[in-house]
Amino acid sequence: MSVGGFVIDPKLAAESTPLGELTLCTVRLYDDARFPWLLLVPKQAELVEIIDLAPSDLVRLIEEIAVAAGVLEAATSPYKLNIAALGNVVRQLHVHVIARFEDDAAWPNPVWGRGARVPYEAAARDALAKKLRTGFGFA
Amino acid sequence: MSVGGFVIDPKLAAESTPLGELTLCTVRLYDDARFPWLLLVPKQAELVEIIDLAPSDLVRLIEEIAVAAGVLEAATSPYKLNIAALGNVVRQLHVHVIARFEDDAAWPNPVWGRGARVPYEAAARDALAKKLRTGFGFA
Repeated sequence: MSVGGFVIDPKLAAESTPLGELTLCTVRLYDDARFPWLLLVPKQAELVEIIDLAPSDLVRLIEEIAVAAGVLEAATSPYKLNIAALGNVVRQLHVHVIARFEDDAAWPNPVWGRGARVPYEAAARDALAKKLRTGFGFA
Repeated sequence: MSVGGFVIDPKLAAESTPLGELTLCTVRLYDDARFPWLLLVPKQAELVEIIDLAPSDLVRLIEEIAVAAGVLEAATSPYKLNIAALGNVVRQLHVHVIARFEDDAAWPNPVWGRGARVPYEAAARDALAKKLRTGFGFA
């Protein structure tokens, strides 16, 4: 995927499924069945920190994070949402929006670096992806 | 501290030092000498998720996060910033803005749940707090 020089990081791409496009971000379902988990990746080249975004895009980012949080919450009814821009492993700017439950595999710790990713079975992934796409209003 | 019913969570208060006040958030230095670490706490009662904020306050939040990120970056020259709203332990809405280094105590993992907090020595805490207050333009 390339928009104005933007190419999604290959590790992010390999570990997630595309859901659709918002104005600023491309939205993907991270492929870890332990946690319902969205990735928002701003479609601009060479972004690392959120403060690399222009002010108007920073506002767009938080608006799109809020949309994603609302969609994920409606789809999965979590106990808590976790929202983060870390980038310690993959440096390309991306935002995690994760549904957390008191009985999930990492609770109450953050999800990163806690055991191995558990890829979805295809049917479960497709069902969740469909539900999320509907929530976003993606075609 | 109470503003319109807002009282900061006692655990957050006990583990951090007040730096000053932005329009939406009170800003604190988290007391862990392993990581330069700001907390932004919106001064409104009963917030849990960022999507509990009114849209105009959500924009204010990302603007204040960007200010905090810029101040922390200028003060500490990190390799990476970590920005997150988790709330798995303390449910009151708060945003972490953390300076990360490739040789820090948790790298490349997130900082939460990785060993015990190491409180600053008073002189080091006061020096960093002073530098940060100057960066924010707090009196």
